[in-house]
Amino acid sequence: MLGNFSYCNPTKLYFGEDSLNFLNEELPKYGKNVMLSYGGGSIKKNGIYDKVMEILKANGKTVFEDSGVMPNPTTTKLYEGCKIAKENDIDLILAVGGGSVCDYAKAVSVSAYCDENPWDKYYLRMEDVDNKIIPVGCVLTMVGTGSEMNGGAVITNHEQKLKIGHVFGENVFPKFSILNPVFTYTLPQRQMVAGVYDIMNHITEQYFSGEDDNTSDYLMEGLMKSLIYSSRIALVNPTDYEARSNIMWTATWALNTLVAKGKSTDWMVHMIGQAVGAYTDATHGMTLSAVSMAYYRHICPYGLSKFKRFAMNVWNVAPNSKTDEQIATEGLNCMENWMKELGLAMNIRNLGVTEDMLEGIAKSTFIMEGGYKVLTHDEVFEILRASM
Amino acid sequence: MLGNFSYCNPTKLYFGEDSLNFLNEELPKYGKNVMLSYGGGSIKKNGIYDKVMEILKANGKTVFEDSGVMPNPTTTKLYEGCKIAKENDIDLILAVGGGSVCDYAKAVSVSAYCDENPWDKYYLRMEDVDNKIIPVGCVLTMVGTGSEMNGGAVITNHEQKLKIGHVFGENVFPKFSILNPVFTYTLPQRQMVAGVYDIMNHITEQYFSGEDDNTSDYLMEGLMKSLIYSSRIALVNPTDYEARSNIMWTATWALNTLVAKGKSTDWMVHMIGQAVGAYTDATHGMTLSAVSMAYYRHICPYGLSKFKRFAMNVWNVAPNSKTDEQIATEGLNCMENWMKELGLAMNIRNLGVTEDMLEGIAKSTFIMEGGYKVLTHDEVFEILRASM
Repeated sequence: MLGNFSYCNPTKLYFGEDSLNFLNEELPKYGKNVMLSYGGGSIKKNGIYDKVMEILKANGKTVFEDSGVMPNPTTTKLYEGCKIAKENDIDLILAVGGGSVCDYAKAVSVSAYCDENPWDKYYLRMEDVDNKIIPVGCVLTMVGTGSEMNGGAVITNHEQKLKIGHVFGENVFPKFSILNPVFTYTLPQRQMVAGVYDIMNHITEQYFSGEDDNTSDYLMEGLMKSLIYSSRIALVNPTDYEARSNIMWTATWALNTLVAKGKSTDWMVHMIGQAVGAYTDATHGMTLSAVSMAYYRHICPYGLSKFKRFAMNVWNVAPNSKTDEQIATEGLNCMENWMKELGLAMNIRNLGVTEDMLEGIAKSTFIMEGGYKVLTHDEVFEILRASM
Repeated sequence: MLGNFSYCNPTKLYFGEDSLNFLNEELPKYGKNVMLSYGGGSIKKNGIYDKVMEILKANGKTVFEDSGVMPNPTTTKLYEGCKIAKENDIDLILAVGGGSVCDYAKAVSVSAYCDENPWDKYYLRMEDVDNKIIPVGCVLTMVGTGSEMNGGAVITNHEQKLKIGHVFGENVFPKFSILNPVFTYTLPQRQMVAGVYDIMNHITEQYFSGEDDNTSDYLMEGLMKSLIYSSRIALVNPTDYEARSNIMWTATWALNTLVAKGKSTDWMVHMIGQAVGAYTDATHGMTLSAVSMAYYRHICPYGLSKFKRFAMNVWNVAPNSKTDEQIATEGLNCMENWMKELGLAMNIRNLGVTEDMLEGIAKSTFIMEGGYKVLTHDEVFEILRASM
């Protein structure tokens, strides 16, 4: 464990098949006006909308609908949400959906009472929040982002072709989140596996950084093994409760600040993936999978001992009489095979990237410094080419 | 992940070499009267007492000293603490020490304003807290119990020869805990290894229960591997910061409710160990180590697949052409060797138990039902005999 740090995660989680009932315990803590934020309406088809509305009504809430939150929430939608929130004196934003809806709800929660353009303040200048924050609660219907128990909120600005995540502090974390694995059953397989890879990548982004034998490294190996195990079951049987519940729980702990404590982190796959996302509007998890193998093969020589450990501890690669390079390579090959097994996007061309976009994507990729090699924009360009 | 559950851990942790400075951030949140609870005075020798007092004075606090908290805090001491707390209108109990001091502080926090005998109410009848609770903060100088981030508070009643732990709810968790690995450097080796085994046993108590492939099982395997790795380094070099910090962090996460969520747990080693402790006043971790091997060898046949998994995933036992029994046995032998390497108590005779005590200890052992075999008192007696 390196450096000095503090840890506190105030989000209360309700987990399980009956967890929606706990909404009855949380709602009385907030005022009358609830803004119900959700996506394209799938929650109306699968009955979750009706169940949530029933509980809201039973608790005497006035509900202000805020539908149409898109997979990559835009600044345009953010401003719309802020208007609803401010005009109706909203006491609680209830996000019902996946990571995009939760991210969006948090972005609205800090932006509604921001006295200047929130995109400029919170995304371009990355300032701390000094205005009123509207409390957020989440009902999760899709897993992957970990947004249900952290301060992350990614927003896309189409005009500027920028997709940026601000990681807000504890005061912006959801007050509560309801995690019912059954709510994720009806998700199309493509969305499920994109979520699985998002989880995996959250872990590898934090794992492939630093050289110490940190407790977090061991925890992350456990999370990865659990995820790989459960994802293979869920792929065959999407309604296996155990598998879906373990995936859901792994997602939360992969990105709720715990495993990053006391260590450095990378996040370059997310930076490249988000740049691809800003150009293509492709599913977040798929943008990550499509650039991952090229990225990890590129940085492997710079963090060889960790890639060797990854191969042995996560993928059970036997070390006998192999070189470190061979062991590390075998581990990455195992990961690639698992990704193909899941049916993930393995190149960015399939996501709509064309040759003429590569330079723009490379240039707009934000360079982070925690990984085994600080990339140049030329290297990002090469990784993008290798991902075509 | 089984059943429905909620998760929320409100304790704020400050970790690192400079973490005591954060006391300056916490103290202003509480009133003027601080009760400073600590043990036998080792904190006066190693300078921690002076540092804490300086910060308390700088923050304008009136300090009420409450020293002499013993390794197994007694009801007599508890009543003494309650008197100090109530008479002086204490606003914050600051526990400086190890798990015993933290446990004691929490027991005082719920007992001071209890309008009947707190031992009867909270330990014999295990009731919920319905009276005023005094906030508790901790400065940790010894690791193992996880008391710094949970609601556990073990108290010993010498007259009744009972050592009982009440696991209180979130409202009793410490408000903050300061974890400085350097503060644990001066601990005698015997105390250090007793703490290490306490951590290990917290994990195995939660691991050896249930049959599902739960994310928690993978997390616990990670915690155990980290602990085994770091303990071997700390044994040779007690001032290895990395090793001591990883042990400290592992201790917290081994028993702060996380890994027990969504699964069943055992706790029989603690029940037997605590009964031994009530008769001998031996160090908690040593009572656990002294009965562990006999207990685990006794229940191994009833949870064979988990013991096999333990052998392979935690101790890297190679499965090639061995029976499940052989693999499981090899894993337990690895654990025993590691325990001997640490210099732990491996039998209860060395802790002061005599033949004539065995029946009384067996009879006073509380039987829990979450393990692979619900024991009879006769079986407890046999385990105690095998531990002599």
